[in-house]
Amino acid sequence: MQKLNIPYSIQWNETHITILNQQELPLKTEFLDLYTLEDVFDSIVTLKVRGAPAIGITAAFGAALAANALNEEHFPVFIAKVKESISYLASSRPTAVNLFWALNRMESVLIESTTVNEAKTNLVHEALKIFLEDEETCRQIGEYGLSLLKPGSQVMTICNAGGIATARYGTALAPFHLSIEKNIPLKVYACETRPVLQGSRLTAWELMQAGVDVTLITDSMAAHTIKTKEINAIIVGADRIAANGDTANKVGTFGLAVLAQHFGIPFYVAAPSSTFDLTLATGEIIPIEERKEEEITHIGNTRIAPNDVAVFNPAFDVTPNELITAIITEKGIIYPDYEENIHQHITL
Amino acid sequence: MQKLNIPYSIQWNETHITILNQQELPLKTEFLDLYTLEDVFDSIVTLKVRGAPAIGITAAFGAALAANALNEEHFPVFIAKVKESISYLASSRPTAVNLFWALNRMESVLIESTTVNEAKTNLVHEALKIFLEDEETCRQIGEYGLSLLKPGSQVMTICNAGGIATARYGTALAPFHLSIEKNIPLKVYACETRPVLQGSRLTAWELMQAGVDVTLITDSMAAHTIKTKEINAIIVGADRIAANGDTANKVGTFGLAVLAQHFGIPFYVAAPSSTFDLTLATGEIIPIEERKEEEITHIGNTRIAPNDVAVFNPAFDVTPNELITAIITEKGIIYPDYEENIHQHITL
Repeated sequence: MQKLNIPYSIQWNETHITILNQQELPLKTEFLDLYTLEDVFDSIVTLKVRGAPAIGITAAFGAALAANALNEEHFPVFIAKVKESISYLASSRPTAVNLFWALNRMESVLIESTTVNEAKTNLVHEALKIFLEDEETCRQIGEYGLSLLKPGSQVMTICNAGGIATARYGTALAPFHLSIEKNIPLKVYACETRPVLQGSRLTAWELMQAGVDVTLITDSMAAHTIKTKEINAIIVGADRIAANGDTANKVGTFGLAVLAQHFGIPFYVAAPSSTFDLTLATGEIIPIEERKEEEITHIGNTRIAPNDVAVFNPAFDVTPNELITAIITEKGIIYPDYEENIHQHITL
Repeated sequence: MQKLNIPYSIQWNETHITILNQQELPLKTEFLDLYTLEDVFDSIVTLKVRGAPAIGITAAFGAALAANALNEEHFPVFIAKVKESISYLASSRPTAVNLFWALNRMESVLIESTTVNEAKTNLVHEALKIFLEDEETCRQIGEYGLSLLKPGSQVMTICNAGGIATARYGTALAPFHLSIEKNIPLKVYACETRPVLQGSRLTAWELMQAGVDVTLITDSMAAHTIKTKEINAIIVGADRIAANGDTANKVGTFGLAVLAQHFGIPFYVAAPSSTFDLTLATGEIIPIEERKEEEITHIGNTRIAPNDVAVFNPAFDVTPNELITAIITEKGIIYPDYEENIHQHITL
């Protein structure tokens, strides 16, 4: 078994946590030690930590750090102060569902404790549990994903559904990390993922660190690459999956799914089962965030489009279920009919 | 009739030519006066002029300028010196077919003249003729193209098959310019066209100058835009069209053609009939140029990908004829069966 080099994006070190500063990638590989509640809050606000699972884990460790730092022996006062820290952390990214979910778990553990010392210990354990559960979830997704890929396959991906967005391994990238562990040769083509370039800045970097054979292309080269490089499969992450399997993910995903159908290759979505939102009957009703024009008109400080040009900048698109070959979660592989099979899968 | 504001990329002013400096777009609209052979040579080498027809026209005017500048009364010596200038201009872009074609026309006119003064006059006339013929070709393409678009249509394009790459109007963009002249409302979505960004830097700029309603998107947003903005047609240019209609054009074109088929909207190729290369039976044998890695790893001076990342950078792709609804030339509109109809069209 080869040694994995997937950089951990978050590590617990008793007195502090160490995070990978994703804002500096790919130009600089910088790790930051966070000792205080404020350090943790700042790392989330300034996007040094990104990826829903990674944000939740970091915030959970932040709550544990804040509790440990309290010099307060009176338990009700201690509880009130930790709750305050938790609320503060929750305000760092007001739309991050995983953040609230992780902090809710921390608050439950806090309330169920009976002494200051017990609470401090339990909070650290709960944060570590959240971390380890996520790592295990991603590893399972990777195992199931890898089972769908023949050795020697050429696989395309978009955005960064990677280890650095989770505890480890990632979702769409987990099969590639496990392929290194298991000595299974795979070749990955990463779409750069305009406008924010998560493919070139993060995925190419992460896979290179781990020793995965990765080649970078622009999004516009996907069709030509699938044809001439004989791509065998496309695998992507997901932000939200409706009850019928329609999948919201980074803009560009939908186009890749159309190409997969055209070329007759499988198109896989890899995501934890927590990504399903069964309150949504179809993907048609998923609201698509439109982001600021500068993401398209500028790269870094370089303006690349005329002043005052009209811009359309949707951050996500929705891939209809009929273009998806299978959905891979930590519980297994879901094939159509999705409406029926997702429901069964969730209640496993 | 509304006044057109398509900026001319090349203008003849007797003592000099004035060109649009396309290297400065879209940040600065700069026109340069070129007085000498060296000025013209330099403008082509440094890509201030781009687009096959525009390069040919500029070189033709350069030959005329060089001839006019000669203070040589002995005709055989005059011919030898102009031929030298023509060879020099031909070395500015060794792979530009249009450049040689235009300069060959200039050389023929030179040789057929009988005096220095007659040659000087004929060379200017021939260069103007090349210019005007190209303008007329583009205008015809625009007329035929516009006849395929209903008023109020939303049309997508990629790269810059524009007026600034030709004498005027362009090819894929010609219908949009004529729609302004004829007061026919159209809405254009321009794909930015990574890696070199001709869509954002040139097409968005050109259409804004002309008053066309244009919205810029990244290439990755094409599928979502076609679906949610209800795009009615896609129109693109061509670098080379094989005898069976397979079309080589800027990378990204093939993917758009697949999307057009998926969404059931027409996909048009607009190009002068000189783009057909009947020596190529199919597009499979068109060699695809791969360009330098920096186009993908950098934008301007900004590095956007890890050091030493592997890159695949094909400049073009080939759209198979079965994905093309029609090919529009200055002679008319060609529908399948292409093999038969292209042959007939060429011999019109």
